[in-house]
Amino acid sequence: MEVLYGLHPVEEAIRSGSRRLDYVLVSRDRRDKGDDRLQRIIDLCKAAGVRCSVESKDQLTRIARTDAHQGAVAAVRERQFLAIEDLIAAPPRFNRKFYLALDGVEDPHNLGALLRSADGAGVDGVLLPDRRSAPISGVVAKTSAGASEHVPIARVTNLVRSLEQLKKANTWVLGLDERGTPDYTDFDFNTDCVLVLGSEGTGLHDLVKKTCDHLLRIPMAGSVSSLNVSVAGAVVMYEALRQRRSPLAPPAVVAKPVKPRKGLGS
Amino acid sequence: MEVLYGLHPVEEAIRSGSRRLDYVLVSRDRRDKGDDRLQRIIDLCKAAGVRCSVESKDQLTRIARTDAHQGAVAAVRERQFLAIEDLIAAPPRFNRKFYLALDGVEDPHNLGALLRSADGAGVDGVLLPDRRSAPISGVVAKTSAGASEHVPIARVTNLVRSLEQLKKANTWVLGLDERGTPDYTDFDFNTDCVLVLGSEGTGLHDLVKKTCDHLLRIPMAGSVSSLNVSVAGAVVMYEALRQRRSPLAPPAVVAKPVKPRKGLGS
Repeated sequence: MEVLYGLHPVEEAIRSGSRRLDYVLVSRDRRDKGDDRLQRIIDLCKAAGVRCSVESKDQLTRIARTDAHQGAVAAVRERQFLAIEDLIAAPPRFNRKFYLALDGVEDPHNLGALLRSADGAGVDGVLLPDRRSAPISGVVAKTSAGASEHVPIARVTNLVRSLEQLKKANTWVLGLDERGTPDYTDFDFNTDCVLVLGSEGTGLHDLVKKTCDHLLRIPMAGSVSSLNVSVAGAVVMYEALRQRRSPLAPPAVVAKPVKPRKGLGS
Repeated sequence: MEVLYGLHPVEEAIRSGSRRLDYVLVSRDRRDKGDDRLQRIIDLCKAAGVRCSVESKDQLTRIARTDAHQGAVAAVRERQFLAIEDLIAAPPRFNRKFYLALDGVEDPHNLGALLRSADGAGVDGVLLPDRRSAPISGVVAKTSAGASEHVPIARVTNLVRSLEQLKKANTWVLGLDERGTPDYTDFDFNTDCVLVLGSEGTGLHDLVKKTCDHLLRIPMAGSVSSLNVSVAGAVVMYEALRQRRSPLAPPAVVAKPVKPRKGLGS
């Protein structure tokens, strides 16, 4: 049994159906205050036939092992993962497939933030190696604002072999690397592809790097040499979304009259 | 006196000259192991005339109040901030000015990540209100990988008034808001502008929102309704950089031959 906590994670776990839920606990305090989001969780439990009990805040803190539960805790069974074949078989969310693969992201906050961004950017699936990855824990679910319960995730034993499998399915393998070329904005994402991110400390493993068709780079205009891995991943995922959503559109629509400007300085 | 710690923050504090440094401590262990980056800090201290002592790891941990110091600690004077007029007077980094304003970002990790991204995306300056902002602490400096010492930061007393000042200098004020319109990718950033980010919990304050010329939105393709504030900020800052770097270029250069594809599946 695992424990999820927080309004978003608990709500999304019930909605997504990605796990079996044993029970949900909501805090008496918050329910009595008429918290709308807590009420929504109670209603969702009813609709889904999940047992929902009202308990004291302290009881929730004991079970969640943190007081960051926002009045909602769920006892859940292990997350069911997909196989890489499932990701390949599914239709693309937008006109082309876009996957994210994580090569050694061990920090649960980074993993959670990446899953949240992957959900937001409409990524078709995430490849997570068995080893050298943070597990999908309560912290990850909380940081991901519940996205961890929705994003299709394939647990893979050997990342390089899975990337090769994707290559055979005509998917381009793109590593993100400080010393890469071209800039990510110069890549045409209107092709099936998988973005591979390395760990914050050491970057991509050598074998993974060798498997990549391209190493993309994020331009760094200032003094630091790289972005946080979860930020870097989001920047590229959203550029890919921009291109996939409007493959033929011009770069940017002028959203404002150039002049005269009404209300300027008013 | 404040304390910075970590290889990046200490190195960048010496390089940037944004603070007076009282002294730098490096750990004996790491120096004796011949750590290149620590040696660089020792050399930089010599060049800059900053007193640098070799101490035990434990002594550094005591002074930094954390063991995350990576063998480098600096005792520094308070960060010197700029005035909004300084930001306005400076020439643009790229063809147009792009500022970041933070309306209530109180989490030091988010602030650090935003400063790191602002540095990477070549932002011309950051507006930080006196109240409801995390101070530029050791944690912020560490999370920013030292960018906090480089990015031009103006501390402002009244954010709305400062935004009005920027308006008078022909700068467009852009809020980021879940319910905003247009999408950020549809905005033409080839104009002077300032991006205003609200706090993760409550978003932009009403008065700040009213001051905005446009409220931009990041499209959310999945189940969650918003990104982490530091991720959202980076996504927009990098879209602005993309547009500012190549105002006339087509959206994306095809970086690969479409077919035949050499080495596919090999």
